Amino acid sequence: VLELPKKIKKILDNLWKVGKDDPRRVKHALKVGVSLTLVSLLYLMEPLFKGIGNSAIWAVMTVVVVLEFSVGATLCKGLNRGLGTLIAGSLAFFIEFVVNDSGKVFRAVFIGASVFIVGALITYLRFIPYIKKNYDYGMLIFLLTFNLITVSSYRVDTVIKIAHERFYTIAMGVGICLLMSLLVFPIWSGEDLHKSTAAKLQGLSSSIEACVNEYFEEEEKENETSDLSEDTIYNGYKTVLDSKSTDEALAMYASWEPRHTRHCHRYPWKHYVKVGSVLRQFGYTVVALHGCLKTEIQTPRPLRGLFKDPCVRLAGEICKVLSELAASIRNRRHCSPEILSDSLQVALQDLNIAIKSQPKLFLGSDQNGSVSQGNSGRHTTNVSQNINKATNDAASQQSGTRLDPNTGTPRGERMSRFGPNVSFSRLRADTLERRSAAATSERKILRQQLSMIVVMTSLEFSEALPFAAFASILVEMVARLDNVIEEVEELGTIACFKEYDNSVDKK
Amino acid sequence: VLELPKKIKKILDNLWKVGKDDPRRVKHALKVGVSLTLVSLLYLMEPLFKGIGNSAIWAVMTVVVVLEFSVGATLCKGLNRGLGTLIAGSLAFFIEFVVNDSGKVFRAVFIGASVFIVGALITYLRFIPYIKKNYDYGMLIFLLTFNLITVSSYRVDTVIKIAHERFYTIAMGVGICLLMSLLVFPIWSGEDLHKSTAAKLQGLSSSIEACVNEYFEEEEKENETSDLSEDTIYNGYKTVLDSKSTDEALAMYASWEPRHTRHCHRYPWKHYVKVGSVLRQFGYTVVALHGCLKTEIQTPRPLRGLFKDPCVRLAGEICKVLSELAASIRNRRHCSPEILSDSLQVALQDLNIAIKSQPKLFLGSDQNGSVSQGNSGRHTTNVSQNINKATNDAASQQSGTRLDPNTGTPRGERMSRFGPNVSFSRLRADTLERRSAAATSERKILRQQLSMIVVMTSLEFSEALPFAAFASILVEMVARLDNVIEEVEELGTIACFKEYDNSVDKK
Repeated sequence: VLELPKKIKKILDNLWKVGKDDPRRVKHALKVGVSLTLVSLLYLMEPLFKGIGNSAIWAVMTVVVVLEFSVGATLCKGLNRGLGTLIAGSLAFFIEFVVNDSGKVFRAVFIGASVFIVGALITYLRFIPYIKKNYDYGMLIFLLTFNLITVSSYRVDTVIKIAHERFYTIAMGVGICLLMSLLVFPIWSGEDLHKSTAAKLQGLSSSIEACVNEYFEEEEKENETSDLSEDTIYNGYKTVLDSKSTDEALAMYASWEPRHTRHCHRYPWKHYVKVGSVLRQFGYTVVALHGCLKTEIQTPRPLRGLFKDPCVRLAGEICKVLSELAASIRNRRHCSPEILSDSLQVALQDLNIAIKSQPKLFLGSDQNGSVSQGNSGRHTTNVSQNINKATNDAASQQSGTRLDPNTGTPRGERMSRFGPNVSFSRLRADTLERRSAAATSERKILRQQLSMIVVMTSLEFSEALPFAAFASILVEMVARLDNVIEEVEELGTIACFKEYDNSVDKK
Repeated sequence: VLELPKKIKKILDNLWKVGKDDPRRVKHALKVGVSLTLVSLLYLMEPLFKGIGNSAIWAVMTVVVVLEFSVGATLCKGLNRGLGTLIAGSLAFFIEFVVNDSGKVFRAVFIGASVFIVGALITYLRFIPYIKKNYDYGMLIFLLTFNLITVSSYRVDTVIKIAHERFYTIAMGVGICLLMSLLVFPIWSGEDLHKSTAAKLQGLSSSIEACVNEYFEEEEKENETSDLSEDTIYNGYKTVLDSKSTDEALAMYASWEPRHTRHCHRYPWKHYVKVGSVLRQFGYTVVALHGCLKTEIQTPRPLRGLFKDPCVRLAGEICKVLSELAASIRNRRHCSPEILSDSLQVALQDLNIAIKSQPKLFLGSDQNGSVSQGNSGRHTTNVSQNINKATNDAASQQSGTRLDPNTGTPRGERMSRFGPNVSFSRLRADTLERRSAAATSERKILRQQLSMIVVMTSLEFSEALPFAAFASILVEMVARLDNVIEEVEELGTIACFKEYDNSVDKK
C-alpha cells in the first residue's frame, strides 16, 4: 500500500527533472499546445471552415508531425514535407493524365503497377546513407502522398479539388509551425552545437584534472569522495565519446537554419562535427589515463609521489590549453597565439628530468617475487604497509569484487589465498575434474579463480611499468593537443571568429 | 559534357553497393511494394470498397508508416500505432460524451482547451527518456488521433461511424504489415544484434593482431600495405566504439520480437547491450594501443625488436581468447573452461622476463641530447641509420604533414630545421612581431612551428617510455579480458547457451 505513493512521487520527480534539466522543453510543450489550438480554431470557426472543408484535419496533422524542438529540425521536416507532397502530387497527376482515357481494368492494373514500382523504389532509395540522413522524411511523405492521390483518383473524380484543398491546409499548418518555431522562443540547433562543443572541451579539461589529482592522492580516498571524483572524470569524457550521433544530427539541423553572421555566408556547421571527432580522438587518451587509475597492476602510491609535481603541472598546462580553447569557442574569437606556452614546454622538460633522475625505478625487481625490495630502500616500509592495507580492504570487499570492475586490486588477498605452493597445473586438473558436474554457479567460481591467477602472474611485472604508461599517455596528450588546436583554429578561421584581443581577455 | 555520365555512373554504383552490402534491403523494398499493392487492391476492388468507404486510404497510410525493416521495428511501430489510436479514441469519445449536450460556444472552448492541454502534456511527456525510447511513436499517434477525433467531432455527427471504419482499415493495414514482415523473409533485429556482437569480438581480435604486427614491423612499410593494415585496425575497433546507439535500437526492437528458444522465456537482449558496453571499454584499450603506433615519440624499431616475440605471443593469446568468445556467441554455446589458458600466463611471464632482462633500456639517456648512446651499444648504428632514414622521408613528405595526423614523425627534419641554436624566446619574439600583420595563413604557419617545438622538446624523453606504455597496455588488456569473459559467460548463462562440448569444437 505504501508502494504506490512512492512510485507516484518518483514519477513526479522524474517529470520535474526533465523540465529542470532543460527549461526550453517546457516552452516547447506550450508552443505545441498553442499551435494545435490555433490550427483547431481554423476548423472550429464557421467562416473559414466553408473555404477549406474537411481538409482542415490535414493542418492539424501537419502541426503534430512537423513542429519539432529546434528551428532547424522544424524547417527540415517542414520543407521535406512540402517538397515531398509537391513532387509526389505532380507525379501522381502525370500518371492520372496518362491513364485518364483508358478502360477501368487497364487503369486498375496500371495504378497497381505504379504503386508497386514507386513503393519498392522509394523504400530502396531510403537505404542510401546520404538520402537517409537528409531526406528520409521527405521520401516517406512522397510515398504517402503519391499513394493517396493515385489510389483515390481511381474512384473520386474531384481529386484535383481535394488535392488543392489539402495542399492549402498543409501549407497553412507548415506556416503556423514555422511562425511558432522561428518567432516564439526560437531554439537553435546551431547554438546547441556551439555550446556543447565548448562544454566538451571544458569537460575533458576537468576530467584530466580529476584524473591526475586522484592518481597522486596520498591515501586511498573514502568511498564517497572517490565516487565523486570518479563521476567528474567519467562524465567529463563520456559526453565527448558519445557525441557522434548527437553532433551529426545537430549539425544537420543547424545547416537548415537561416542564420548568417555578418562575415560568413554559410556558417560551417560541418566543421563542428570535425572538431567533435578530433575531440573524440583526444578523449580516447583521457580514457586511457582513466584506465591507469583502475588498472589491476598499480605503481605503489609512494613511488608515484616522486613524480607528483611535474605530472600535476603538465596536466595543469594541458587543462589550461583546453580551457583556453573552450573560452575561444564560447566567445567566438581566435585563441591566444601564445596558447602553446613556454610553461607547457617547461613542464614537459621537468617531467623528463624527474623521470631520468630516478632511473632505478624503471628497473624491474629481481626475478623471484619480492616486489619492492629492488627499489630505493626508503620506500620499502611504506609499500609493505600499503600492501597490508590493501589486504584488509580486500578482505572486507571480497564479496563485492566480482561484479565491479572499478574495485581496487585486492592483491595481497589473492596471493595469500592461492599461496605460492598451488601450482597452475593442479588448479587446472581441479577445474577439469569439477567440470563434469558443471553447475553454472560453480563454473563462475572457477572462472573467477582462473582469471585471478592471470592477474596474480602479472603482478610480478616491473612496478614502474604502469607509471611509465601514465607518463607516456600524458606526453601523448600534449602531442594530440596539436590536432585539437589546429581544428579549433581552422573552425575559427572558417567561421570568421573575432581576432584575439589581448586587452579584453587578460583580465 | 563528360561529367554527367560519370556522375550517373557514380550514382548507379552507389545504388548497387547499397543492395550488395545487405541484400535484405532489396527484399525489404520488394516487400513494401507488394504490401502497398495489396492494400491498394482493397480500395480498387469494388465489393470491398462499399464496406469501408473512403477510409481505405488509412490502410495505405498505415502500411507506408508501419512497415519497417525488421520484425521488431514493425511490431513496435504497429503496436504503438494500434494502442495510441485506441487510447486516444477512447479519451476523445469520453470528452465528446461529456460535452455532448452543451451549447456550441462552450463546446468550442472546451475542445480548444483540451486540445491545448493534451498537446502540451504529451509533448512534454515525450521528453522523458524512458517514454522517448519505447513509446515515442505511440505518443505521436495518440496526439494525432485525439486531435483528429476531437476536432472533427465538432462538425461531423457521424464521428463514431467514421472512427469505426478508420479503426478497421488501420487494423487491416497493420495486419498486412505484420503478415509481410513476420512471414515473408522475416528480418530479425535479434539475429542482427547477435551476429554483430560476435563480429565485434572478431573485429577487436583482428584489430589487435594487426596493431601488434605493425608495431614490430622491421621496416617502415610501403604506403599501400600500411594503409591496408591501418584500415584493418581502424575498422576493427571503430564498429565497436560507434555501436552504442545501434545496439540499443536493435535490442529495443528485438525485445518486441516473439522469439523463444526452448529454454529461455525471455531472451536477454538487454544483456547484449551490456556486453556491447564492456566491449567498448575494451575497445578503448585497443585505441590506446593503436595510439602507440601513431604517437609522435617512438621507441626506435631495433629496440622494439628485442621484445617482439613475447609481445606478439601475448597478443596472439589475447586474440585467441577473443576469437573463442566470438565463436562461443556465434554458436550459442558456453566458451571453453580453459579459455584462460596456460599459454596466456606463459606469454605474460615471458614478456615480464624480457622486460626485466633489458633493464638498461628503461634508463633515460643522459640529460643533454644524444638520444641513443646511453643504451646498449650494439643498437646505436641501427638507430642513427633509422633517424637518417626518417629525415629523408620527412623531407619528401613535408608538404603533406600538417593536415594528416597519421603521418610518421619527421623528427630529424624538425631538429635540423630549427637547429639547436634557435632559442625559444627568439622564436616567440618573432611570433609576436609577425602577429601584428596577422593574416590567417601566416598564423597557421606560426602555429605549426610552435607545435613542432613542443614535439621537439619532448623528443628528449626516455626512448623506452613509449614501449613501456605499449607493454603496459597489452598487460592491461589481459586484465580487461576478464570483464569481457565474465559478461559473455553471464550472457551465455541467462540465454541458456549450450554446454561447451569438447569433442565438437576441438576439430
